[in-house]
Amino acid sequence: MSDCMQVFAPLGLPDIQPGDDLAALLIQQLQSNQQPLQEGDIIVIAHKVVSKSEGAVVDINDVCASAEAIDLASQVNKDPRKVEVILRQSKKIIRAVRRPQQSEGVLIAEHRLGFICANAAVDQSNADNEHQLIYLPENPDRSAKLIADALAEAFGCRIGVVISDTFGRPWRLGQTNVAIGVAYVPALISMDGDCDAWGRPLKVTAPAFADELAAASGLLMAKEGKCPAIVFRGLSWESNPQASASDLLRPENEDLFK
Amino acid sequence: MSDCMQVFAPLGLPDIQPGDDLAALLIQQLQSNQQPLQEGDIIVIAHKVVSKSEGAVVDINDVCASAEAIDLASQVNKDPRKVEVILRQSKKIIRAVRRPQQSEGVLIAEHRLGFICANAAVDQSNADNEHQLIYLPENPDRSAKLIADALAEAFGCRIGVVISDTFGRPWRLGQTNVAIGVAYVPALISMDGDCDAWGRPLKVTAPAFADELAAASGLLMAKEGKCPAIVFRGLSWESNPQASASDLLRPENEDLFK
Repeated sequence: MSDCMQVFAPLGLPDIQPGDDLAALLIQQLQSNQQPLQEGDIIVIAHKVVSKSEGAVVDINDVCASAEAIDLASQVNKDPRKVEVILRQSKKIIRAVRRPQQSEGVLIAEHRLGFICANAAVDQSNADNEHQLIYLPENPDRSAKLIADALAEAFGCRIGVVISDTFGRPWRLGQTNVAIGVAYVPALISMDGDCDAWGRPLKVTAPAFADELAAASGLLMAKEGKCPAIVFRGLSWESNPQASASDLLRPENEDLFK
Repeated sequence: MSDCMQVFAPLGLPDIQPGDDLAALLIQQLQSNQQPLQEGDIIVIAHKVVSKSEGAVVDINDVCASAEAIDLASQVNKDPRKVEVILRQSKKIIRAVRRPQQSEGVLIAEHRLGFICANAAVDQSNADNEHQLIYLPENPDRSAKLIADALAEAFGCRIGVVISDTFGRPWRLGQTNVAIGVAYVPALISMDGDCDAWGRPLKVTAPAFADELAAASGLLMAKEGKCPAIVFRGLSWESNPQASASDLLRPENEDLFK
């Protein structure tokens, strides 16, 4: 474990458009800011800029709502076309909820990648216009690896990447960022077999390292959308080329709350 | 929002014993490390050292298990005296679970302070001996405020304090630190009414600031228990004397998953 870290937001990244080379833009910005990445740096990137660069966006006017979407939309007072996009991103809808005071309700979904989240992570915030819906990248681990490899080559050192989204939590108010894609950064750090300071086996055996990084990024990642990347420097971590954000998914048979 | 922060673990804090003045020991260690706190620093402290200093510990041999504890203990293969302490810390037990491969199961509890967590946060890790059980401080917000006020007076500047524990999550594997007590640091930052970078109302309206800090502290807080305090420097935040970790509790009628 390290005993200190520095965390900073590279400022000045331009708005990202479909087809943009996000890694190249990050490299260019870090270089022009004179903030070259260093050995072992980890960069947490908000999925929205990754999604935009990959074209994981849709104009709501181009969506045709199915009968299922129209039915579900009426239960929660959502635009049926938005519900259609949510359904396409979901394995299943776990709950449809609209509270009396809410104009628009929420669909708690199991995303096709396995994450449980509101509206299958389909969102309008920080879209380019009010008709645009942004969804998660097709394969966020792959996206993370492409960016990590490009950064590693540009700066000549080992770099980790976490792609984050902002999720609510069942029992706690407020949102935190969580990891939805990782490259090289271990999602969980298994401490099984380790002992506490008094030599007894630890009960807490797996810090969710990638989620800790994602949550920490929220301290600097302005929700207004202008700081989509946060660099962590000074952490010691073991590179894992097989790391995946799916390592953070609790198997359904272990889930006490379904 | 800031665009950078420094995070460090003051090393060399002695083992904490019941009756110790934790704030005084922190001040002494920060001064002898030549790491004086600065205006706006936030310190995240693992509850275990707060609990120990306040005597929120019990020797399991001094506990007499009730009939309810004995019955529940048999369902999950726990020591009935440990279950008795868990029951004393709980409003109610939500689920008792023991999986086939587990020697000892888990009690998901609503803690008397409202937090939903495993075993009502009663734990043996980092206790002084194998008979000792540690539980949450009686009033963690009050504990945080006493420490924050002592630090503020010693260093002559505004200091925030978060007291953390390590919780599992329903749908995600691995544990992260969460806030169970705060002083001056807002638990949630309401962004209701704010707009995204394109001028549209934000959907994400309340970052769980204290939980972001707690989770981030886990990146440096060695689980072996020797780095129980982490300092965050460089964040901009508005002091709130009324802040409480209970601000993070989702009201039962809003909980989609009970």
